Amino acid sequence: MLYALLDRARAASQGLAEADRDGALIAMAESLLDQAAAILSANEKDVAAERERGTSAALLDRLKLDMDRLHAIAAAVRHVAGLADPVGRVLDGRRLGPDLEMRQVTVPFGVIAMVYESRPNVTVDAAALVVKAGSAAVLRGSASALASNRAIVRALRAGLVAAGVNTDAVQLVDSADREHVTSLLAARGKVDLVIPRGGESLIRHVVENARVPVIETGIGNCHVYVDSAADLDAAIKIVHNAKLQRPGVCNAAETLLVHADVAGEFLPLVEPGLRSAGVELRACERASRMLSGSVAASERDWQTEFLDLTLAVRVVDSADEAIAHIGRYGSQHSEAIVTRDAATARRFQQRVDAAVVYVNASTRFTDGFEFGLGAEIGISTQKLHARGPMGLAAMVTSKYLVEGEGTIRS
Amino acid sequence: MLYALLDRARAASQGLAEADRDGALIAMAESLLDQAAAILSANEKDVAAERERGTSAALLDRLKLDMDRLHAIAAAVRHVAGLADPVGRVLDGRRLGPDLEMRQVTVPFGVIAMVYESRPNVTVDAAALVVKAGSAAVLRGSASALASNRAIVRALRAGLVAAGVNTDAVQLVDSADREHVTSLLAARGKVDLVIPRGGESLIRHVVENARVPVIETGIGNCHVYVDSAADLDAAIKIVHNAKLQRPGVCNAAETLLVHADVAGEFLPLVEPGLRSAGVELRACERASRMLSGSVAASERDWQTEFLDLTLAVRVVDSADEAIAHIGRYGSQHSEAIVTRDAATARRFQQRVDAAVVYVNASTRFTDGFEFGLGAEIGISTQKLHARGPMGLAAMVTSKYLVEGEGTIRS
Repeated sequence: MLYALLDRARAASQGLAEADRDGALIAMAESLLDQAAAILSANEKDVAAERERGTSAALLDRLKLDMDRLHAIAAAVRHVAGLADPVGRVLDGRRLGPDLEMRQVTVPFGVIAMVYESRPNVTVDAAALVVKAGSAAVLRGSASALASNRAIVRALRAGLVAAGVNTDAVQLVDSADREHVTSLLAARGKVDLVIPRGGESLIRHVVENARVPVIETGIGNCHVYVDSAADLDAAIKIVHNAKLQRPGVCNAAETLLVHADVAGEFLPLVEPGLRSAGVELRACERASRMLSGSVAASERDWQTEFLDLTLAVRVVDSADEAIAHIGRYGSQHSEAIVTRDAATARRFQQRVDAAVVYVNASTRFTDGFEFGLGAEIGISTQKLHARGPMGLAAMVTSKYLVEGEGTIRS
Repeated sequence: MLYALLDRARAASQGLAEADRDGALIAMAESLLDQAAAILSANEKDVAAERERGTSAALLDRLKLDMDRLHAIAAAVRHVAGLADPVGRVLDGRRLGPDLEMRQVTVPFGVIAMVYESRPNVTVDAAALVVKAGSAAVLRGSASALASNRAIVRALRAGLVAAGVNTDAVQLVDSADREHVTSLLAARGKVDLVIPRGGESLIRHVVENARVPVIETGIGNCHVYVDSAADLDAAIKIVHNAKLQRPGVCNAAETLLVHADVAGEFLPLVEPGLRSAGVELRACERASRMLSGSVAASERDWQTEFLDLTLAVRVVDSADEAIAHIGRYGSQHSEAIVTRDAATARRFQQRVDAAVVYVNASTRFTDGFEFGLGAEIGISTQKLHARGPMGLAAMVTSKYLVEGEGTIRS
């Protein structure tokens, strides 16, 4: 069943680069609103079933759709339609000889699969970005949103019909069975790229089972290092922002590292704002003596992406010790230093191996929209193909076109 | 043992971007010539052992080194030293706000492993390109070249010592045991990239066992399609060049597709040059009737990268049938059309899914040097990160550097 679906996706991807993809996106956005009643009713069933299973209020809120959210989702699709086409951009080109010319141009991948969790808006975002990038989208959301996703994909496909585009360009893997994810990951030659979006266990499952190309996204065990030469006022603002502005996301800070020379002054200054927001501090022994309220940090705390109101705190004796800590525990996502010393800032930028390295700014800026990419399909924590926030440019590949006049190699 | 080697490689990679890498390459080239006697004597042992095992003359020739070849290998290292630095190039950048600036810059991967077969010059090429790209090189050549590779790596490391660079930046996996390849492929977090170079079985082993990022290289089942609107003189030149100029390499043609409208005229014209060069033709039924000497092609022949004086020949009824044949049997490497019709050429370029698509030129141009990349580590047949000939630009990743003034997200 899955392979037949993938073969239909492949067929639909042929010629999609030359179709009116922006027109299709606008029709998809309209169709979402036309079919709002069916989508919201399906979503109510998903929400009711999850409520019965005792799912937390926070997760129920992520799952829930209403008319306002649906309008925002449709507006996001129209926004994608307005972005520059990522297909057909000339990346490089030169004359290879008097009668031979070469151009490297961006082309679609072909079939892109997204494997993701809970939020039904990801179904729409992913479909819109994949189609904009000229590929067919194969979508595999979570079991908890299956009814919502069915109704959404039905609406998206009706939009494709209205625009005269092959509906198999957007398809749902309509099953809660994890076996289908494993089959998808093994489908060499049938899937050109898999992008997982979700928690640590989903990402690990995908990376360990993939025989097809994957872009890993998202785990963020991010650090803010406050150097001995830091402007402490700036450091307080940055630590509070990186921890508190939205604690549940991957670019929030999880560990605060402070240079011993300023820890005695800085920690009592930064603590009240964190504590009053409800943050639990898990501190190394030295840090705990400078804080008025903390629990002892364990080895496990340095490794953890809390995604919550918890912050690990450690005093270090040098910038190099901070760099070594980040090298050992970080997830190569977003890392920040607060310092007025140019040489230390430069060394931190060079030596910290992460997608984004900040000097005197909050880790919270790691985001496709903040970075001016116009859209975001995820944040890559791998080094191959795309690193950091991924926009449409990361969702195409390239091809060399070479033209001669009966030209041969001598 | 392997993990300890990888940890040493990681340590050596720290700061390599800021070291005098070009100076190190020049010292490596000198050291290869200084230690020529030891290298040639080790190579003689490898060659003698292989001769005893009954290895073919062609493979023995690939394994064999002499003073001329060693001079050419050292010259290639000096050439790499002279190329532009791939590290530190600014790929993108903009102001994200009044007090926030972002740059995306190229940075080394960290630890790059090469897994390859027979030819000992690959040991030197790979080490030079990886070090130039600022990463530590972990090299795993074939058992048949182990003595040669030991002597070569000893010389390369002596060059690193002379240049004051940590010798662990170039290391040999000194074992003929395939288990070590499998361990290397599973070493998540310890190896940033594996590049296999070799035959189909090696590539398949790597792709199927890899848990670390891989760039697939090299299988080339390449086609030349002679369209009904072809200039037949040009087509003869191109087919002869693509098949005969160097039959044993991945960008040589393996199948000739001919439009039915011109097959009766073209096949008798192209056949004599192929036959006189010793090419065996494996033809579909229609083609066989137009050729004076051929054997019947089997399904297997359409799938095969012969790497030899064998050419499959098929008559097709349209350009779309040729495109469909290539879609089914091709390996997405290099594909060529010969035609004077602009619309047909354009459709072929759009619809054929391959790293390089030629119009009126030989497939033999798919090569990093021919493409002006200055060097070549391999030819990628995957779509992620690099496609087609890979030069130094494919051997680095990137990092976003963001600088603020105590800047936070609101």
